[in-house]
Amino acid sequence: MTDISGLVGAARDGDPRSVARLISMVERDAAELAEIAAAFGADAQRAHVIGLTGSPGVGKSTITNELVSAYRAQGRRIGVLAVDPSSPFSGGAILGDRVRMQDHATDPGVYIRSMSSRGHLGGLSAATTAAVRVLAGVGCDVVLVETVGVGQAEVEIASLADTTLVLLAPGMGDAIQAVKAGILEIADIFVVNKADRDGVDATVRDIQGMMALGERAPGEWRPRVVKAVASRAEGIDDVMTAITEHWVYLDKTGELRKRREQRAAAEIEALVLGRLRKRIGSLRGSHSLGELASKVAAGALDPYTAAEELLSGLG
Amino acid sequence: MTDISGLVGAARDGDPRSVARLISMVERDAAELAEIAAAFGADAQRAHVIGLTGSPGVGKSTITNELVSAYRAQGRRIGVLAVDPSSPFSGGAILGDRVRMQDHATDPGVYIRSMSSRGHLGGLSAATTAAVRVLAGVGCDVVLVETVGVGQAEVEIASLADTTLVLLAPGMGDAIQAVKAGILEIADIFVVNKADRDGVDATVRDIQGMMALGERAPGEWRPRVVKAVASRAEGIDDVMTAITEHWVYLDKTGELRKRREQRAAAEIEALVLGRLRKRIGSLRGSHSLGELASKVAAGALDPYTAAEELLSGLG
Repeated sequence: MTDISGLVGAARDGDPRSVARLISMVERDAAELAEIAAAFGADAQRAHVIGLTGSPGVGKSTITNELVSAYRAQGRRIGVLAVDPSSPFSGGAILGDRVRMQDHATDPGVYIRSMSSRGHLGGLSAATTAAVRVLAGVGCDVVLVETVGVGQAEVEIASLADTTLVLLAPGMGDAIQAVKAGILEIADIFVVNKADRDGVDATVRDIQGMMALGERAPGEWRPRVVKAVASRAEGIDDVMTAITEHWVYLDKTGELRKRREQRAAAEIEALVLGRLRKRIGSLRGSHSLGELASKVAAGALDPYTAAEELLSGLG
Repeated sequence: MTDISGLVGAARDGDPRSVARLISMVERDAAELAEIAAAFGADAQRAHVIGLTGSPGVGKSTITNELVSAYRAQGRRIGVLAVDPSSPFSGGAILGDRVRMQDHATDPGVYIRSMSSRGHLGGLSAATTAAVRVLAGVGCDVVLVETVGVGQAEVEIASLADTTLVLLAPGMGDAIQAVKAGILEIADIFVVNKADRDGVDATVRDIQGMMALGERAPGEWRPRVVKAVASRAEGIDDVMTAITEHWVYLDKTGELRKRREQRAAAEIEALVLGRLRKRIGSLRGSHSLGELASKVAAGALDPYTAAEELLSGLG
């Protein structure tokens, strides 16, 4: 048996191996889950979860690096989850992380982890939620979830966050990409990075034009549009201010509680359905889903009887 | 008790009320499901299921009307499901149907039904699958599933079909819309309607350019691009030829069986999960999901224990 309270204690003291081990345990749905959750207590809900997404090349790593510096300058602990839905590599992409985030590689107040779609039974979104919970539970004040790319998976992952930043760069057609992915609806703050390039004002206008199309209730948050040149650390203060404003808005309006209740409901339902799916999967034997589907497709069985057969096996 | 074999017999004879009643029974997961399925037998897999999707205004109703005429001219029975994911109205939108399809309103070889997202516990996609099954089961040779709009729901519904037609019109930016919705990947046949308008060649080029980006295995179906002016019944023969070619391809390559097995697996899994979800929903009492989510969001409960509580209630 693992000494859970010892592990959580070491993770709280900033030991990255202990954090990594806890995340792995939670991800693989270990038997000690309830014990881990008990050790975290209410801390698991304390962190400000910030989502960061945008197309490749807009400078997500650079912005992340700068935000980490800014939070560290405030003395706050920060966890970074770099999520790549298209990558088959997971967890151990340590070298990549070190190269990306070399400014912070040796800082015990910063924890960085790569996550990919490989090996997560319940899906990347569920695994990311679980990792966010661990980072918050071991004392991170801020958890930054960076997703690579702009797509449906990114939107799903971004929806875990309290505050979602969408990064764009001038002249990359990112605004259109953002509309494509439905990411416009989830953005709380737009950061137009590389604002020293031509076309920055057009990009800002594009965003504002698209926002004008959406309806907002009185008092509802209107997404901020902030310009930055992350490579020169310019505009980071403005980004931090926008994040703080959004946090205050969430807290003041009760939106934070609402978002987190929705997230918790989705999390619980995903866990329940994930476990039920596992039970369905474990039936692959005399009455596998594949066999049943083949019979249904051939007209030899109806789907209702097939579903009943699977369900009776779940009992 | 309902006389199922009598009902199925009347539906096979072309009585629209009997068809409607069977669809309603299947949709609401009636107790007689297995009996209905038994009455259909292997017929439920016989029809060629054609999906038709495209933005509002591209002429879907007109094309549908022309395709119905073409199939009727061949003496084939056809069912049409007009699916509107954004509409709150369902089933009974008879007047609308009559107006839309007045050429065929009194033809017993044609059955037309509107479907919307209202009142389908298992989702519109599951309800549509169920309705397709009924139409095939009562003897339709072709079932045409027309979705209004281009979005995620449409993609999901189109994935029910054996053959998917995507309708575009010149100068509407539909090609971009299609990319946005991921509809490009599911199209077997592109129909560029209103081909008498300016910009038709640009639209055709756009589609071909986008297709060139996708990789195809040798022998794999390469989507056809067909021009039509449905309002003048022009190009309908070409559309019918492309549909037939695709059907032959599906049949010859074993792709039909593969698609239908995948569809059946998705259908069974959706039924199983739908019933399990219903069980989760029926727990709303001492341990509702909402209550549990609220506790989790407040840090008073962990999601794993919450999931276990819900699961134990399902037993």
